[in-house]
Amino acid sequence: KGSDGKYTVTLIPGDGIGPEISESVKAIYSAANVPISWEEVSVTPILKGGKTVIPDVAIQSVRKNTVALKGPLATPSQYPDIRLTRAQTDNGDAVGKGHISLNLTLRRTFNLFANVRPCASIKGFKTPYDDVNTVLIRENTEGEYSGIEHEVVDGVVQSIKLITWEASERVARYAFHHAQASGRKRVTAVHKANIMKMSDGMFLSACRQVAKDFPGITYDEDLLDRVCLQITQNPLPYADRVMVMPNLYGDILSDMCAGLIGGLGLTPSGNIGRDASIFEAVHGSAPDIAGKGLANPTALLLSSLMMLRHMNLNDYASKIEKAALTTIAEGKTITGDLGGKSSTKEYTAAIIEKLGKA
Amino acid sequence: KGSDGKYTVTLIPGDGIGPEISESVKAIYSAANVPISWEEVSVTPILKGGKTVIPDVAIQSVRKNTVALKGPLATPSQYPDIRLTRAQTDNGDAVGKGHISLNLTLRRTFNLFANVRPCASIKGFKTPYDDVNTVLIRENTEGEYSGIEHEVVDGVVQSIKLITWEASERVARYAFHHAQASGRKRVTAVHKANIMKMSDGMFLSACRQVAKDFPGITYDEDLLDRVCLQITQNPLPYADRVMVMPNLYGDILSDMCAGLIGGLGLTPSGNIGRDASIFEAVHGSAPDIAGKGLANPTALLLSSLMMLRHMNLNDYASKIEKAALTTIAEGKTITGDLGGKSSTKEYTAAIIEKLGKA
Ligand SMILES: CC(C)[C@H](C(=O)O)[C@@H](O)C(=O)O
Ligand SMILES: CC(C)[C@H](C(=O)O)[C@@H](O)C(=O)O
Repeated sequence: KGSDGKYTVTLIPGDGIGPEISESVKAIYSAANVPISWEEVSVTPILKGGKTVIPDVAIQSVRKNTVALKGPLATPSQYPDIRLTRAQTDNGDAVGKGHISLNLTLRRTFNLFANVRPCASIKGFKTPYDDVNTVLIRENTEGEYSGIEHEVVDGVVQSIKLITWEASERVARYAFHHAQASGRKRVTAVHKANIMKMSDGMFLSACRQVAKDFPGITYDEDLLDRVCLQITQNPLPYADRVMVMPNLYGDILSDMCAGLIGGLGLTPSGNIGRDASIFEAVHGSAPDIAGKGLANPTALLLSSLMMLRHMNLNDYASKIEKAALTTIAEGKTITGDLGGKSSTKEYTAAIIEKLGKA
Repeated sequence: KGSDGKYTVTLIPGDGIGPEISESVKAIYSAANVPISWEEVSVTPILKGGKTVIPDVAIQSVRKNTVALKGPLATPSQYPDIRLTRAQTDNGDAVGKGHISLNLTLRRTFNLFANVRPCASIKGFKTPYDDVNTVLIRENTEGEYSGIEHEVVDGVVQSIKLITWEASERVARYAFHHAQASGRKRVTAVHKANIMKMSDGMFLSACRQVAKDFPGITYDEDLLDRVCLQITQNPLPYADRVMVMPNLYGDILSDMCAGLIGGLGLTPSGNIGRDASIFEAVHGSAPDIAGKGLANPTALLLSSLMMLRHMNLNDYASKIEKAALTTIAEGKTITGDLGGKSSTKEYTAAIIEKLGKA
């Protein structure tokens, strides 16, 4: 908290529609008098020793402020970073092009161990489902994202899924704390321990051990494929719980759940670490509509509200949330992707107007 | 084909509701005069050298007949086979209990390299979606199912995802052939090569190479998380294509798609190998309703129709399919899980009645 009574927060507007949706959040925050001053930094990647890295000034800012809000960062191209294996090249060069996603780099740099992805149906926004209300907590540092891969012999590649007791225990503990703090009565560990008996098995063991410290919370386990099967048939039994899982499963299940409520334009996320936390909209940078004033800032706004709650600024969060959800529920002044005809600015103004009335 | 003009097919009724739904299929096949004689074998597991194995007589039968129809096999218990790692035990025994799923054992024993899982909305059966119509083809021998895992040091486990050029190329080729034979104009490879650059990268390279041999079919690629996000929002763009993917992704995506059309009671599957193919209902053995005459035989019946088409008995397949789908669409004589009140026998009789009228 600075001498002006405000908290400094790093703002990474990001690429494509990032700057527009960031402007929207800033405008709403001014109108709501949220005691935050934004320290805006760019994360345009720089090339260092053949690798794309995040500029130091961005890293320093997040480290200093310990809280950041982040728009979408484009990965250099869709997935150009398929590494060629020996079997595919003549010269035996197995290194390939190798752009690492900047989103992942940020998660790694700050050891953001828990990725929190709430997913709740938004009233008034029509999808086949209106009773989704779950919180996914994804281990965010290892698993299938270890980055360890090698070609054993020509045409035989191994990727390592790395599971450690330490990271499993840490994310499990975070999940139980989160459930406790948010009044959710059940934590479900999602896994494929029927197949990956040792790795997912250890993940489950860690969850089981942590569960003992939370006697007030029901703990259970469910197979990833079963959850996918059942939540699409009926999301209700999955409401009001927290689901915790290894990295890749969280990637998949969170996108699936986002699909059930209407897409990534509506889902917030937070990457929680011990020394810093980054709240981000996980949708893409939407280059096709960038700069046209049509972007939907909701995911970034909802992510910022997770951030406010993380900072114990709950009242501001609730007030803004109410204004945004009411605006969507009324359905008059919403952006195109939500089925409306309004510009980012008009939608933002509508939310601000609601704030004034509150 | 035997001297009686009939094909002998191995029937593995399986556990729980398996025998009841198998009876239903047999009754329908008799009524339709399908030229098949069933060789029924049990796959009650036997213990050999501390491992559960499949009885030899079952293996021999499948090997001889090369085609089998299979009901659900219960895995000894839900997932008791979490192997304890050194970090979790006192005595350093890392071997654990280790029941391998019999379903997987069958796939491995016969090197059933392609798991074909069509998923199409069934007319008259109400779900939030009525336009799902996709075919998933899952690599069925390696990937995350390699079974190779080890504890590097206390509390650090590695599971190996194994991807070979050979298996990738083989399943890709099968997918293109399948698309061609079934009139689907597009093959999409589903992957996470943005993360697993070398393993999923090699899978994609194999698909790209095979695609060159099928100029009449559009080939493209999509991220697994994106597919999950989008297909739940709108399955239509995924209709009329074949999606091919590594093992685990197929496990997850096929259950998700099954959820979209109403569950595993309605989805067939076939495990295709060079020397044998096994068609199976992938739902569970439903011990809670076993023996009560309430089970829904649809998934096994639809799987058997994939089998008939595999055997070039297309006319029988179409005739039975029409009778079954009409019975479901009318919605009068259907089982409880489909929203009706009929017994397995009544539902079966209704299908047979329709056959008579055809
Ligand atoms: C951008 C990509 C690397 C990332 C992931 O796979 O984790 C994204 O899909 C996500 O869910 O945040
Ligand atoms: C029974 C289980 C081992 C299996 C799998 O994970 O493949 C099942 O979920 C399936 O999809 O056939």
